[in-house]
Parts: sequence; structure tokens; C-alpha cells
Amino acid sequence: MTGIFITFEGPDGSGKTTQIKLLEQYFSEKGYDILITREPGGTEISEQIRSVILDRNNTKMDKITEALLYAASRAQHVAEVIKPALLEGKAIICDRFVDSSIVYQGIGRNLGIDLVKGINDMATQGIEPDITFLLKISPDKALNRKFSSDECNRLDMEKLEFHNEVYKGYLKLEKLYPKRIIGIDATMSIEEIWGEIINIVSNRLKT
Amino acid sequence: MTGIFITFEGPDGSGKTTQIKLLEQYFSEKGYDILITREPGGTEISEQIRSVILDRNNTKMDKITEALLYAASRAQHVAEVIKPALLEGKAIICDRFVDSSIVYQGIGRNLGIDLVKGINDMATQGIEPDITFLLKISPDKALNRKFSSDECNRLDMEKLEFHNEVYKGYLKLEKLYPKRIIGIDATMSIEEIWGEIINIVSNRLKT
Repeated sequence: MTGIFITFEGPDGSGKTTQIKLLEQYFSEKGYDILITREPGGTEISEQIRSVILDRNNTKMDKITEALLYAASRAQHVAEVIKPALLEGKAIICDRFVDSSIVYQGIGRNLGIDLVKGINDMATQGIEPDITFLLKISPDKALNRKFSSDECNRLDMEKLEFHNEVYKGYLKLEKLYPKRIIGIDATMSIEEIWGEIINIVSNRLKT
Repeated sequence: MTGIFITFEGPDGSGKTTQIKLLEQYFSEKGYDILITREPGGTEISEQIRSVILDRNNTKMDKITEALLYAASRAQHVAEVIKPALLEGKAIICDRFVDSSIVYQGIGRNLGIDLVKGINDMATQGIEPDITFLLKISPDKALNRKFSSDECNRLDMEKLEFHNEVYKGYLKLEKLYPKRIIGIDATMSIEEIWGEIINIVSNRLKT
């Protein structure tokens, strides 16, 4: 594997999209072939799986079934898109990856970190991001930034509680995988955040 | 859990269906509530998952994706059908279960026993059969019994090779789990096979 695989994690509204665009531009200027992706990753099979997960009639879906389906969708994304791109030496930037499953399903939905990590270890064939940028901002602040205050009011307290649990999960993962996961204060300006990211990426490319 | 959970394994044509019917009758006479099931287990969600697996257009499906989808289908079958029936004290007889996945996908398709077992341990929430009857007959004999010789000729050598590998996998599992998996010589008569099964089941019900 000669490419580089970078993922972005963090609450909705933490500014991932903006930083991904800046990083894409950076790799482009460096002459890299680039793959920007997000799950379900645009594979036909992953989309079919996703439609089973999202089918509103499937109210009886078990939480473990759901976690296995997300992992199946990811397995296809890895096998069909990410792994070939890595082998071709591309710079791959993925908006959310395994860490999202761990915090949303493992912690937010109470399946446990170990179970969700175990399922996903199989799905990813051992492929891990080289760097994961965790954009750290508390969910209430992030959501305020993303939505107008009217839209925000629609998020009831239960949902905010859920997002807070998920966020705590992210902070836990940051401690568990300090070498891979780089936490960045996402309340800073776009330029300041980008400064930290580019510093880390350019150092990594030198090694 | 107060019910009893019995699974049947073995090559196609090994006589599972006949023995399942006899066992159903036995439990019925004993006054048990009975659940006869097989995967995908008749749940709406499992059927949807199965249709993704079997879609002929999905030629690019990765082997790991497939194994995760089978496990997702099983997770739903366990959560929605098997686990509730066990809690209600039913006698559950299932035609093929996790062992089939291990031998067909883990060994036949070369994914490895550990990987397929790992995925399925999560899908089954730790629920294991109390007894698994493995009807032992070499695939060529079993297929000869199941199909007319004309139909049999359509199975080319490659397919027989695959079924032989799968069968070797079954014999390996029998050694790995001697307490749970009871191997029975399926070349015997229906009555002889049934005699062995009823002997073991009635002893187990006494304990």
C-alpha cells in the first residue's frame, strides 16, 4: 500500500466538509491522484444495503442487524473503492469511517465499543486510516452553527443527550488511539484549524 | 432460557428434513410448543437482506460483504424469532444454523473459520444450539440420493470438490465441539438414524 488514507470525524456542523475541500486542493497541488469519498461510498451494493437500513417499514430491525448491515456496506466500500485506490497510490479522504460507527452505534445505541469494533475489523480487512482528524466541538455549539435557531429548536433534549454521549465516545477514542486520532479544537477559525491539519499532513508526507 | 434449541447440519440430501419431521412429531406428543425454522427465517427484514445477497446483478459483491449480510439476516432471525421462542420455553428445531456459515463461507469460500465464527458470535447474541445433529454422508452419496443421475451429471467436478471441502469442514467442527455436535452416520436407515437421535434427545430432556 503506497497511498495515504485520511478520515475526518466529529459532530455534524464541526466543519469537516470545509477542511476536506482544503485538503483536496492541497493534495491536488502536490500532484496526487485524489479520492474523496463518504459512506455508503457510491457502490451499487452499498446503496442497496443502505436502503434496507433506512426502510421506514423496518421498525423491527434489531440493533445488531443494523450494525452488521452498516459493516456490510462498509466492507463493500473498502473492497470496491478504498482498497483499490490505496493500491494505486491515491490520496484518499473519507468523511466519517469506522470511528463513526463505534461512537454512534457502539456508544450512542449502547451496543458496546468492542462489539462494533469487532464487526468492523472484519469489514475493513485490517485497513486503518493513516490519520484521523477529530474536529472537537460540543454538539450544541456545532448544531447551532449548522442550523438556524428555528431548526435547532426541533432537536429536543433527548436528541441532544444522544449527541453528547456520542461526543464523549469520540473523546474516549481519541485517548485510546492517540497515534492515529488527532483532536483539533473546532471552535477555532477555519484558517487556524487548517493550519493544524496541514502541519500534520505535511510532516506525515515527509516520513 | 427454558426452551430447547436443536439444529440439523449436513450435506444436501443427507436426510435432515425427514428427521426434523420425526422430531417435530416427538416434541408434539410430549406437549411442547414447537418452532420449526430455517434461515432466512421468514422475517421480512431477513428476506430483504437475502434478496440483496441473491441479486444476480451484484457480481462485484465482496466475500466479506456477503458473510456480513448472511450474519445480519441471522441476527434478525435470532432476535425476532429464535430468542423469543426460547424465552417462551419452546422446542426449536432449525434446519442449518451458524455451522453452515462456517463450513460454506469460512471453509468452502476460504474466508477462514475464525472470521466467520467471529461475525456470527455477534449475530447470535451468544445463543448456541443445545444439540446439533450432524448427518454424516459423503457429498457424492448424498447428492446421488437427492437427485436423479441425470440431474447429478450437471454437477461438475469443481462443484463436487467444493462440497467435499465443505464436508471436511463439518468433520473438523465435529471434533472442535464434541459436546454440542453429535455426528450420526447418515448412510444408515431412517429408523436407525432416528433411533440415535431420539436416544440423545430423550436423555437430554431428563437432565
